[in-house]
Amino acid sequence: MKLYVVGIGCGNRNGMTVGAEKAVLESDIIVGYTVYAEQIKRMYPEKECMSTGMKQETERVELALRLASEGKTVSLVCSGDSELYGMAGLALELAVKYPDVDVETVAGVSAAFSGGAVLGSPLTYDTAIISLSDLLTPTKKIEKRLRCAADGDFVIVLYNPSSKKRADYLKKACDIILEYRSPDTVCGYVRNIGRDGEESRLLTLSQLRDTSVDMFTTVFIGSSETKIIGGKMVTPRGYRNV
Amino acid sequence: MKLYVVGIGCGNRNGMTVGAEKAVLESDIIVGYTVYAEQIKRMYPEKECMSTGMKQETERVELALRLASEGKTVSLVCSGDSELYGMAGLALELAVKYPDVDVETVAGVSAAFSGGAVLGSPLTYDTAIISLSDLLTPTKKIEKRLRCAADGDFVIVLYNPSSKKRADYLKKACDIILEYRSPDTVCGYVRNIGRDGEESRLLTLSQLRDTSVDMFTTVFIGSSETKIIGGKMVTPRGYRNV
Repeated sequence: MKLYVVGIGCGNRNGMTVGAEKAVLESDIIVGYTVYAEQIKRMYPEKECMSTGMKQETERVELALRLASEGKTVSLVCSGDSELYGMAGLALELAVKYPDVDVETVAGVSAAFSGGAVLGSPLTYDTAIISLSDLLTPTKKIEKRLRCAADGDFVIVLYNPSSKKRADYLKKACDIILEYRSPDTVCGYVRNIGRDGEESRLLTLSQLRDTSVDMFTTVFIGSSETKIIGGKMVTPRGYRNV
Repeated sequence: MKLYVVGIGCGNRNGMTVGAEKAVLESDIIVGYTVYAEQIKRMYPEKECMSTGMKQETERVELALRLASEGKTVSLVCSGDSELYGMAGLALELAVKYPDVDVETVAGVSAAFSGGAVLGSPLTYDTAIISLSDLLTPTKKIEKRLRCAADGDFVIVLYNPSSKKRADYLKKACDIILEYRSPDTVCGYVRNIGRDGEESRLLTLSQLRDTSVDMFTTVFIGSSETKIIGGKMVTPRGYRNV
């Protein structure tokens, strides 16, 4: 009668929390999106894993809840964190139909943090995290949030910066941010964080505007204080003592 | 010649990543703020630990860099994540004086996520993280960010919501947010996340305004979509399919 919704981090065991690993090991069955279910299967070959495809989030959560209601201990795995752009919210919503199932959120390291660590320390201070996907948020709301985050001089992390249908979304987002920030603002991106083929690049906001990234990329836009120090993207600490 | 800046999560081993634990175990010496150095000492009693007090961040980082430059493998530990309100930025800044030392950021689960998991799933979508401490950010900039985050309908997570000198900062922050959001907005807070005496509460924004919290508390202010579902704070997933 237990469903763990588990953030498994960026893609390797080092990026998982000890608690996430315990939840997976304690579970009778693991449910996840195909890619993450396969990843867990490679890491823990003895575990029974079930998967559903992209955009089948409701089916996936229902499957996990049904298995838990049948008496199994289940881990529903999400990449990064289990809340942020993950399945914990939907699991808690749908769990009202399964009152016997105890749903527990197990936090994980989201791409803003695992990717930030690759670049150096962009996220030293106040940070806004925004997804450019309009599947679940209206475009006007995304644009408003970009404006507010840029105006507030937050370090901005962009998730889902691109897809086949949305090839120019990053360019549009940069154009909005360029209304508030210098074209020389320090930016960076990381692709395939923690996986084979991980790559990263530092660049200016005007360069980022004209760069194509794919859906496996997380984008970082510095605040007015962010610098490149020793080849790393760093938002320095403090306005009084530096 | 290696310095790991390690986010150790919320306060217990389950909240640490496997990679953070490896870095600590691989290190000859651990450096941290007194509370976190003691925590590591309890978890790994065989490890040599050195600590410095509050507001001695520069001394702490210099100590860690000096030890690393003398040939030791060092972990500089931070609670939560190593970037966000952590030491990674300062370490990368000061490391220019120690060109032989390789500084590696090891990400951790920040309180927004470990605390969010306690409350349910407040952070399902776009999130703004703001510290109310004016030690390192001017008050005017903090107020501007609160306005922008509220106007953008972000879920807002407040770090350092209070201290002895700033007893009314949370009230002031709530007053700013109340210019943009309903007094009935779903809010929550978690105190001592992952530690003895962990406690959490759900309340409205108007109730939060008149609540005293301490410096060990992380505060969550829902977006216009955040609800209480089954006793948990949940930002529901999606505007099309719910």
